[in-house]
Amino acid sequence: MSSSAAATQEETAASVWARIRLADRRDVPNIHRLIRQLAEFELLTHLFSATEASLSDTLFPSPSLPPFLSFTVLVLGLSHSPFSEDGDAPLFAPIVRRIDLESAVEDPEAVEFASPRGEGIVVAGFVLCFPNYSGYLAKLGLYIEDIFVRAAWRRRGLGRMLLAAVAGQAAQMGMGRVDSCVLDWNVNAIKFYEDMGAEVVPMRRICRLTMNKLAALVDE
Amino acid sequence: MSSSAAATQEETAASVWARIRLADRRDVPNIHRLIRQLAEFELLTHLFSATEASLSDTLFPSPSLPPFLSFTVLVLGLSHSPFSEDGDAPLFAPIVRRIDLESAVEDPEAVEFASPRGEGIVVAGFVLCFPNYSGYLAKLGLYIEDIFVRAAWRRRGLGRMLLAAVAGQAAQMGMGRVDSCVLDWNVNAIKFYEDMGAEVVPMRRICRLTMNKLAALVDE
Repeated sequence: MSSSAAATQEETAASVWARIRLADRRDVPNIHRLIRQLAEFELLTHLFSATEASLSDTLFPSPSLPPFLSFTVLVLGLSHSPFSEDGDAPLFAPIVRRIDLESAVEDPEAVEFASPRGEGIVVAGFVLCFPNYSGYLAKLGLYIEDIFVRAAWRRRGLGRMLLAAVAGQAAQMGMGRVDSCVLDWNVNAIKFYEDMGAEVVPMRRICRLTMNKLAALVDE
Repeated sequence: MSSSAAATQEETAASVWARIRLADRRDVPNIHRLIRQLAEFELLTHLFSATEASLSDTLFPSPSLPPFLSFTVLVLGLSHSPFSEDGDAPLFAPIVRRIDLESAVEDPEAVEFASPRGEGIVVAGFVLCFPNYSGYLAKLGLYIEDIFVRAAWRRRGLGRMLLAAVAGQAAQMGMGRVDSCVLDWNVNAIKFYEDMGAEVVPMRRICRLTMNKLAALVDE
């Protein structure tokens, strides 16, 4: 290897190309691993029961509904070289940014999270959203159910890039707002949303009927 | 009028037939009035900007998506006589109950809320719901955005009947849960959900990006 090639390699190691694109069935194994990591992060692994098959059936049903009018996953891929043209994305134009890293990033999970699209792309995060509705506004919005960046890649603006992708889609579709839920102990998540301009809605609390309770009501 | 007919009339006045059915475009004027009353009740009229036209466009788009896989409204109609067969309900079998009233109910809004289906039916409430999704469970659920019974008809089990209709649908579709949001000062609403077996999810807070903030993010 010539010294100039080595220099180039070091240079690219301190920056990375990030691409957000619509997920499809091929991404399910990575999405499954990411959701498990999110459950570990939120200390809620006792609630985690998704399998690759159940994710595939529910996120990518057949026939499929249009993205952003039903459950939608965007995956964040990273590459040390520019992405090749994506001729397979008529429903959502991929968002690509060059991210300057302060220093080279060690990603111990790079092999596990290799993209099914090859080209040395590594999946670093995802966002799962679906439409919600406000009767007061008579407008659709987008609700972010899950947003996650793997530990090695945090604090580099990638979460913000994912949230901005959803917000941009909402604006483009003329929607009224983007909502999400945070755990009240997760001060980093609350700061993340507030830094993006979100307000924590003060008076609303979530009420939840779980499956066994549903059955009881039906038997009435 | 014979005395026996008068006696029958008095008897029916102390009970009423209640029917929950899928709304359609004809119900929009009543839905609009009900949402306005809900905004008044929640002290949130400053957020109320829905019009009949915007409700019609967003709740009943063309082509329409299947009910309960998109935004769905069920309306609650009341009648002093049994409902005639509803031949126009292939997507959701109407739920009918006879409700015993402790005493005859004075409904000062009966004319305003006359059902577009005639037959002396009065619209007394509604529920607006749509599917949500849990990545941990890889399951769909139903989210209740609005549930409302007009003042004259409260405390007679009609809200419970509306919630049970949604819960029954969720159970039938194999969904994982039914969620809703309450205002933390609305102790009656919290008690209503808790009496139905719901738990108030302790640690979750809602973060919201409103329209102007969305635009700012897109411009980044």
